Amino acid sequence: MARNVDVDDLVERARKGQPRALARLISLVENASPQLRPIMAALNPLAGRARVIGLTGAPGVGKSTSTGALVRAFRDRGLRVGVLAVDPSSPFTGGALLGDRVRMQDHAGDSGVFIRSMASRGHLGGLSWAAPQAIRVLDAAGCDVVLVETVGVGQAEVEIASLADSTIVLVSPGMGDSIQAAKAGILEIADVFVVNKADRDGAQQAVRDLRNMIALAGDVGWKPPIVPTVAVKGEGVDDVIRRLDEHYAWMEESGELRRRRLARVRDEVEAIAVTALRERMGDLHGHQRLDVLAAKVLSGDCDPYSAADELISALTSD
Amino acid sequence: MARNVDVDDLVERARKGQPRALARLISLVENASPQLRPIMAALNPLAGRARVIGLTGAPGVGKSTSTGALVRAFRDRGLRVGVLAVDPSSPFTGGALLGDRVRMQDHAGDSGVFIRSMASRGHLGGLSWAAPQAIRVLDAAGCDVVLVETVGVGQAEVEIASLADSTIVLVSPGMGDSIQAAKAGILEIADVFVVNKADRDGAQQAVRDLRNMIALAGDVGWKPPIVPTVAVKGEGVDDVIRRLDEHYAWMEESGELRRRRLARVRDEVEAIAVTALRERMGDLHGHQRLDVLAAKVLSGDCDPYSAADELISALTSD
Repeated sequence: MARNVDVDDLVERARKGQPRALARLISLVENASPQLRPIMAALNPLAGRARVIGLTGAPGVGKSTSTGALVRAFRDRGLRVGVLAVDPSSPFTGGALLGDRVRMQDHAGDSGVFIRSMASRGHLGGLSWAAPQAIRVLDAAGCDVVLVETVGVGQAEVEIASLADSTIVLVSPGMGDSIQAAKAGILEIADVFVVNKADRDGAQQAVRDLRNMIALAGDVGWKPPIVPTVAVKGEGVDDVIRRLDEHYAWMEESGELRRRRLARVRDEVEAIAVTALRERMGDLHGHQRLDVLAAKVLSGDCDPYSAADELISALTSD
Repeated sequence: MARNVDVDDLVERARKGQPRALARLISLVENASPQLRPIMAALNPLAGRARVIGLTGAPGVGKSTSTGALVRAFRDRGLRVGVLAVDPSSPFTGGALLGDRVRMQDHAGDSGVFIRSMASRGHLGGLSWAAPQAIRVLDAAGCDVVLVETVGVGQAEVEIASLADSTIVLVSPGMGDSIQAAKAGILEIADVFVVNKADRDGAQQAVRDLRNMIALAGDVGWKPPIVPTVAVKGEGVDDVIRRLDEHYAWMEESGELRRRRLARVRDEVEAIAVTALRERMGDLHGHQRLDVLAAKVLSGDCDPYSAADELISALTSD
């Protein structure tokens, strides 16, 4: 599958923002290519300039439309934008690609926009491992803004928040009851709430529900603003950007930006280390040993913790 | 939080099927108590008798109702049933407990049923780590059947399938288009398809869609049957159980049962080992080192892979 890659050439072309080079690099990330090591070593010093903005929300709130509207608004300001649409519901890339092509049409011919879907891969640690590397690719390639969009289901939304400098949580009127919205997780991750489809019935109620929820949380440093939008008409999008700018300024001033970015890198390094250790476990030698251990646990001759101990010592003594 | 536990006493009471002992043990699993080690060592030789049945489907297809109907049908056959409802969307346990109490009312006073919700915890490896241990608790406590129910969102449904001997995938008429249903993942994990709410419009179409999808998959050893049910009236539930029995017989005959259970234990042992290694990384010493490494990556002085290498050698040299 993986032809050998001329790392220097690929990095050089990515730095120039060539879409095919970017696409290639992100495919290498998705495929967990061993060639990522020299690539990340080359890209890392170039990264750290992009603002990473997460955007999450339940299905149907208008994430793609909102992403599109934000992209246009950032482009109007002359910024280069990268979009990563992470689909945590699919361990396969196939489904997402059609969506990409559809979305790309809006920005066809605009070299200042790069849009890419990513599957979160079929194994544990997928998102925390791959997403920061894909973000680094876009960052190093000169994107001023990297938008990371994900469906707000399950753990993925919390993971996305840990990847972003600022996280937008999108809701829409009447989408599920307020209990749904009040899920503890959402409040923890939102830096800006956007009530999309604000021209519909129930928008005021949604704003009130969110406001009450925020009030209950008490003083937490940054109080997430609530911005009504009609993304499909572009209404309110400038307000969203203004609020994001305010949040960014607050983060820089308070040291929160560095704290978040450090945490992001810490998670990434840990994920790379865990993946490497898992790979060692999966090596032929370790795998056979794991099979033997599993059979002993299944027959009741060994408990799972002792088996794990044996596995670890096999790993660290090799 | 964790009082010291009299392991022998707790295991003894769990073997008698005392609900409070079971609840306590599963809480210890959820809290990743260090006392799990002797507990699992004591329980493991008692386990391996229960049939583990997974049940998954999108929100609204009638999972809880179907679980309830299956529980009643198994009880009618004189079997002891444990139910684990895993909520992958919540990193917190809080929300699920109310649901438990509501569901418990149906089986109040029936000591042959134990129902418990589990959050999949806020960290990676949560489900693959905790669920097999919770299943072992119920198995060792003498449950003949352990039903593991989860919302079919994202990675969780695939993980659940890897925990179960047999997996039921529940759909209902008109729930999203067939594209949704045709997601590659669903076909891979389903041993039995159940079309619930089969008295509604579109049920025949859903059956046809599934049948076509299964036909496309070709010969794969076991061809998942499609069973229409109206769970709320108990209709079709006996058919589901008959199909599950057939699947179980096929698995025993073909060696698939042992293969799946070995894979399950292998995953569990690996998850325990990875968790132990992550804990070592999180130890004060390692954590400070991780902070230093993250700062170096952020400043561009070190790439993430080299940082991970350093982390691993710190880990394995300690």
